[in-house]
Amino acid sequence: MIRFKLKDIQNLPDERGIDIQYVGVKNVEVPLIIQRKDKDNQVVSAKATMSVALSGELRGTHMSRFIEILGEWGQKDLLGVDIEGCLQTIKQRLNAESARLKFEFKYFIKKQAPVSGLISPMGYECSFEGILINDKYNFILGVEVPVTTLCPCSKEISDYGAHNQRTLVKLNVSYAPQQMVWLEDLIALVENCASSPIFPLLKREDEKYVTELAYNNPKFVEDILRDIIAEIGKMPEITWFEVDCEAFESIHTHSAWAYHQQTRD
Amino acid sequence: MIRFKLKDIQNLPDERGIDIQYVGVKNVEVPLIIQRKDKDNQVVSAKATMSVALSGELRGTHMSRFIEILGEWGQKDLLGVDIEGCLQTIKQRLNAESARLKFEFKYFIKKQAPVSGLISPMGYECSFEGILINDKYNFILGVEVPVTTLCPCSKEISDYGAHNQRTLVKLNVSYAPQQMVWLEDLIALVENCASSPIFPLLKREDEKYVTELAYNNPKFVEDILRDIIAEIGKMPEITWFEVDCEAFESIHTHSAWAYHQQTRD
Amino acid sequence: MIRFKLKDIQNLPDERGIDIQYVGVKNVEVPLIIQRKDKDNQVVSAKATMSVALSGELRGTHMSRFIEILGEWGQKDLLGVDIEGCLQTIKQRLNAESARLKFEFKYFIKKQAPVSGLISPMGYECSFEGILINDKYNFILGVEVPVTTLCPCSKEISDYGAHNQRTLVKLNVSYAPQQMVWLEDLIALVENCASSPIFPLLKREDEKYVTELAYNNPKFVEDILRDIIAEIGKMPEITWFEVDCEAFESIHTHSAWAYHQQTRD
Amino acid sequence: MIRFKLKDIQNLPDERGIDIQYVGVKNVEVPLIIQRKDKDNQVVSAKATMSVALSGELRGTHMSRFIEILGEWGQKDLLGVDIEGCLQTIKQRLNAESARLKFEFKYFIKKQAPVSGLISPMGYECSFEGILINDKYNFILGVEVPVTTLCPCSKEISDYGAHNQRTLVKLNVSYAPQQMVWLEDLIALVENCASSPIFPLLKREDEKYVTELAYNNPKFVEDILRDIIAEIGKMPEITWFEVDCEAFESIHTHSAWAYHQQTRD
Repeated sequence: MIRFKLKDIQNLPDERGIDIQYVGVKNVEVPLIIQRKDKDNQVVSAKATMSVALSGELRGTHMSRFIEILGEWGQKDLLGVDIEGCLQTIKQRLNAESARLKFEFKYFIKKQAPVSGLISPMGYECSFEGILINDKYNFILGVEVPVTTLCPCSKEISDYGAHNQRTLVKLNVSYAPQQMVWLEDLIALVENCASSPIFPLLKREDEKYVTELAYNNPKFVEDILRDIIAEIGKMPEITWFEVDCEAFESIHTHSAWAYHQQTRD
Repeated sequence: MIRFKLKDIQNLPDERGIDIQYVGVKNVEVPLIIQRKDKDNQVVSAKATMSVALSGELRGTHMSRFIEILGEWGQKDLLGVDIEGCLQTIKQRLNAESARLKFEFKYFIKKQAPVSGLISPMGYECSFEGILINDKYNFILGVEVPVTTLCPCSKEISDYGAHNQRTLVKLNVSYAPQQMVWLEDLIALVENCASSPIFPLLKREDEKYVTELAYNNPKFVEDILRDIIAEIGKMPEITWFEVDCEAFESIHTHSAWAYHQQTRD
Repeated sequence: MIRFKLKDIQNLPDERGIDIQYVGVKNVEVPLIIQRKDKDNQVVSAKATMSVALSGELRGTHMSRFIEILGEWGQKDLLGVDIEGCLQTIKQRLNAESARLKFEFKYFIKKQAPVSGLISPMGYECSFEGILINDKYNFILGVEVPVTTLCPCSKEISDYGAHNQRTLVKLNVSYAPQQMVWLEDLIALVENCASSPIFPLLKREDEKYVTELAYNNPKFVEDILRDIIAEIGKMPEITWFEVDCEAFESIHTHSAWAYHQQTRD
Repeated sequence: MIRFKLKDIQNLPDERGIDIQYVGVKNVEVPLIIQRKDKDNQVVSAKATMSVALSGELRGTHMSRFIEILGEWGQKDLLGVDIEGCLQTIKQRLNAESARLKFEFKYFIKKQAPVSGLISPMGYECSFEGILINDKYNFILGVEVPVTTLCPCSKEISDYGAHNQRTLVKLNVSYAPQQMVWLEDLIALVENCASSPIFPLLKREDEKYVTELAYNNPKFVEDILRDIIAEIGKMPEITWFEVDCEAFESIHTHSAWAYHQQTRD
């Protein structure tokens, strides 16, 4: 069979003696089954990045094995749950000391308009990231939540009105392995810290409601960031987080921006 | 009930007397059920653009009705089939003379490696677009197919090797309403006109195969374009098409590019 | 000399007999000298797309000649003025019946804050496009102007406040060859049709001004579009235009969108 | 004068007592004068991100001051040189303990084709980043260099040909303050580690040259990464670096990817 006659260049020894931290594949598109809070599973369209550490003794890693492992695990219901199991497989099959895996995907939640009660799906950019170094496992859950912010300064100094805009909050958290944090809960946490949440479907009575809600609730990017930090302070299971808040100002072409990260003991 | 007390600004008469060709919503994210050739349906994550013509007598259209209609139709199995039915609903509920609707989505096909026979999913960017002007309906099916191109000039003038690269072919076609053209068939048509198709998973024996296939089959962007035009010439059901071929040259940072469109009688 | 020994594959006859409308290079990065209204020239960082029609008798065009011509003309002060001269050169050197050329670039204008009078540069995405078919020349000037829009419906139905957002207006115009339309004037035309212009630098007194200006001047995307169409109606030199208006709604993740195009006799 | 009557909301005390690491403006577009190695200065179109740390006692930072400082410094010839001076100004005017500033811009270098000797400009995405914490200053210089990579495995196992593609290398370095590292030198370092550099303009004799050069010089992403690491090992002035290498595989739609970062004593 031809397979065994072809030389395995990647497997050759390397004489430069240089270890590499991450080698792998990026931007692999794959359908994925995600577990939802209190609901059926959801099939999402994900982008995967998968890598291993490469020892200084070997010339290259075997890129196609990542795709094979992804194919095998992608059909299981539990990939969205058992990232650690998938990383153990990668470590073993690629003969590496550490492995890293990230999925980024659009996740849909049914969202109810605040007054009319009408329901419509809203997509959030989310991510699962797992890192396995030797046998130490760390998991990072990520959400990107678009919200409305209304400027406190503009409200205070103007006789009427206040500029407001779409703002994107990116929140990544790590938590103790025996705990569980849901995407739905992180998204709600962020939306509750904004001037107003964003909705896909709003009838006139809903539009009145969110307009007045934002006006009553003005927030700088600094305010949202601090309110989120304070909320996370109430969740003892979170061991590390970072939060990035970018307001696409309606009065400028640049953004107002704030960022903070913190490791907790 | 509050709903009826709120003034309907969009419904006011407009005195500028200017008709607008397209008014609507853009970049609406929604899960969608797509019919597959000979297979089960596929749930995709789509971006929708929906619009109507607006008569010079009215100030504005009712944007939220697009989202309501999308929500109602998005749950049906047949939206991927009955774009025309959805457009009739839009025309009626928004009281317009013409309506337009486009879905763009990543569509996964199981792809078999040429020698090892290993199977892995590959995502293609696809689109459905429907246009209803009065009662005349037109449908446009779109695929974006990444392929390999190997440069005939580089092969001819070099003592060994030839530069090759990822090339993106975008093909849009219209066809007679009583006919059916499948995404799978359009994708295969394009891949057969390239130096080599692209695969998500290739073992060494497959890599040897596609390397040699591309070398034996050198193509300029002009060649791919003409071969696709010739293939479409064999499909009498196609009434209009456009094809765009962009090669992300491995020896330059710019692209080689070719485009053609044609209406057939 | 080696140059003459290498076979010219592109120059070979083609037997498929298929004409192609556009063949060329895309996304070529190049510094460019642009003429400004009443001011010194400005050096911009442009992306160029250049193409010719290819007769059915020839296998390929000579892509490197586009880059050579661009290099020669890019050093002249007059490329920003004499697109037609550059197209004549392309037609001749590539032996083609028609040629097309587009430059896209960020153009900076010094912008004065409305109350404090402070001045700061603001970048606008602009474009020059020329098309030469046989000896008929057409030129398209394009601007992308970010502005603020404040929703008339939200203002009317809410007890206080009104949602507003960044909105992007894209305007392309053609005009009679003996006329001259300036980027600066098209940008001002669009800004005057918005709820408020956008500024890079606003002190508190300016922020109060633009907040109240937008609140006093609510506009749907339909309103901006019609006001721009009406303004262009006062410019008899414009022979064709298209305008696209997309509001990145602060209360949704999708956009409100309107589009119109028109040829004038 | 109205200026002094408007309440300064940002200046109010904050009771949450939460410090924030970075608060500022992002994506500010500005023309910038960059110093070139052995040549005249170059005007580039930059995107700036500027931020300060915000003490827990204050509600907000004064975003407009960043734009004012950028305007003042942007007109000086020395901003491209004296990032530290600009950061000192930011720290002082915003009354902060630390400040951070990043410029990202397209930088053009005249590039000579290897055989014909023809010269044409090529744009590289570059960045300057400065961080001032208390009085400790750190500077990061960044380049993004597109190159060609040719796959060693494909060459070895195939009877003829080898797949090759455009690969993007991102290199960021810090160096001792009294030293100077030029963009031109970092770009050359990366290009020398690839299968072949990329050129904007290649005549047939040049195309033959780069095709054969790449074939004679096959490299995995792992090889490029290690060769760059080894080259940086010869530059004692570099105190920290990170390098990211992504190959846009011509036979896949995903990328092969490698990354490494290192602090040196």
